[in-house]
Amino acid sequence: MPPKIGIVAGGGDLPARLAAACRASGRAAFVVAIEGQAEDGTFDDGPDAWSGLAKLGRTLALLRDAGCEEVVLAGRLRRPDLGAIRPDARGAKLLAALATTGFSDNAALSAIVAELEKEGFRVVGADDVLADLVAPAGALGRHAPSAEERRDIELAARVATTLGSLDVGQAAVVHGGVVLGVEAQEGTDALIRRCGDLRPAAAGGVLVKMCKPLQDRRVDLPSIGPATLAAARAAGLGGIAVEAGSALIVDRETVIRLADEAGLFVVGIPRPSA
Amino acid sequence: MPPKIGIVAGGGDLPARLAAACRASGRAAFVVAIEGQAEDGTFDDGPDAWSGLAKLGRTLALLRDAGCEEVVLAGRLRRPDLGAIRPDARGAKLLAALATTGFSDNAALSAIVAELEKEGFRVVGADDVLADLVAPAGALGRHAPSAEERRDIELAARVATTLGSLDVGQAAVVHGGVVLGVEAQEGTDALIRRCGDLRPAAAGGVLVKMCKPLQDRRVDLPSIGPATLAAARAAGLGGIAVEAGSALIVDRETVIRLADEAGLFVVGIPRPSA
Repeated sequence: MPPKIGIVAGGGDLPARLAAACRASGRAAFVVAIEGQAEDGTFDDGPDAWSGLAKLGRTLALLRDAGCEEVVLAGRLRRPDLGAIRPDARGAKLLAALATTGFSDNAALSAIVAELEKEGFRVVGADDVLADLVAPAGALGRHAPSAEERRDIELAARVATTLGSLDVGQAAVVHGGVVLGVEAQEGTDALIRRCGDLRPAAAGGVLVKMCKPLQDRRVDLPSIGPATLAAARAAGLGGIAVEAGSALIVDRETVIRLADEAGLFVVGIPRPSA
Repeated sequence: MPPKIGIVAGGGDLPARLAAACRASGRAAFVVAIEGQAEDGTFDDGPDAWSGLAKLGRTLALLRDAGCEEVVLAGRLRRPDLGAIRPDARGAKLLAALATTGFSDNAALSAIVAELEKEGFRVVGADDVLADLVAPAGALGRHAPSAEERRDIELAARVATTLGSLDVGQAAVVHGGVVLGVEAQEGTDALIRRCGDLRPAAAGGVLVKMCKPLQDRRVDLPSIGPATLAAARAAGLGGIAVEAGSALIVDRETVIRLADEAGLFVVGIPRPSA
């Protein structure tokens, strides 16, 4: 039996999926939900405890006291409003260190991972816990992209990877050779909605999510789930492509069912050659 | 006296400014306003005629019949909803040609310029008509960026230039080393609003607008005006930087007054070295 795992839970369905997968396999897990980020309702029995993103001392103590050996950072961790943060002592030290390196996503997440490791926890990726999360190559459902959509996917993958290399975001929406929108701090759902608002319904277009080339692959992997499919359908997109072997697909069964019903494709693609 | 000029008018204040500048200098001008793009209320006496972005035959005939020798494409030309376009014969031919090259901003604008030139018009830039439109280097008003803001400007300029090289957009908003948002088809005002919504009011941050490295410099130059300043103020930004020698500042006097009142900086910066 693998050791007890702490799940530090951000937004979206992924943390609850991981907790359920642990329970199903008999593995002990302890969920620390991050205030303002984790979604209480997604957990069958609620999280085991709450902490703040900047309450690093509290989070470490909770994980230690629960006897966790491994820790996974799961779910979307949004950049908090720096003016409203109430850090504890350890969190304040981390924030002070980040003030010199900058608060970019990569810098902030790497610093949190380093603190966990300093404390003796082994930090693992969500894909280490739940192996079938990772997107395979090729079409997942019944539908496949058209020739025009494949061209749009290629352009969007290039744009998303370039953005990722600048640590800006992971996603882009392209339609008919035009980049409708690119993701930064607003998140993928807001990106999809905005692109839908630019055009008539059922207009077409593709969403592509790719890894940031330099990111720590244990945190912040690009992910999609049922909510992404619903947003893509509402915005009239033709489908979604994600980086095969890296991106996470949360609740793959539901994702495929929704895609098949809506006539959308979901496809795993390779990283574009540089 | 320079020859009669046709002003093909997109959105924003720039077309009306150009028309007023021509009138003030005694130069004959003829304004063709583009439906769904130009703003009727910005013109003192209204435009001389209306046409559609895809009614290329009509636009060319209007300019020819008015006796224009030069033409300037002025103001924001948004990508139209391709499903709702009603092209005339000449516009349909252009759309068919674009269907093979893709409808990217650069491709579409270059194609329109080529059609105008084929018809014998000399296509000029807005900065050829109104020389003091172009942003100078350095601070324009009373305020200058802080050391942290200068670092954010540097990052935003790099991101915006990279996006521009992919023909995605011209603008980025950065705060504290984090890229809050990047512009694609939604336009700069929507970008600024979205970034403001991500944070508390008066939080700081910079908007940077740069030329696309490969764009035809006669069309679609990055521009700011009083509306940009108002949006930046409402979003709590600390200031705006634009590419000196390339970006256009519409109604500079009002821009400087608004910036000084709001405590914002407006500064012309060089293109980042590659």
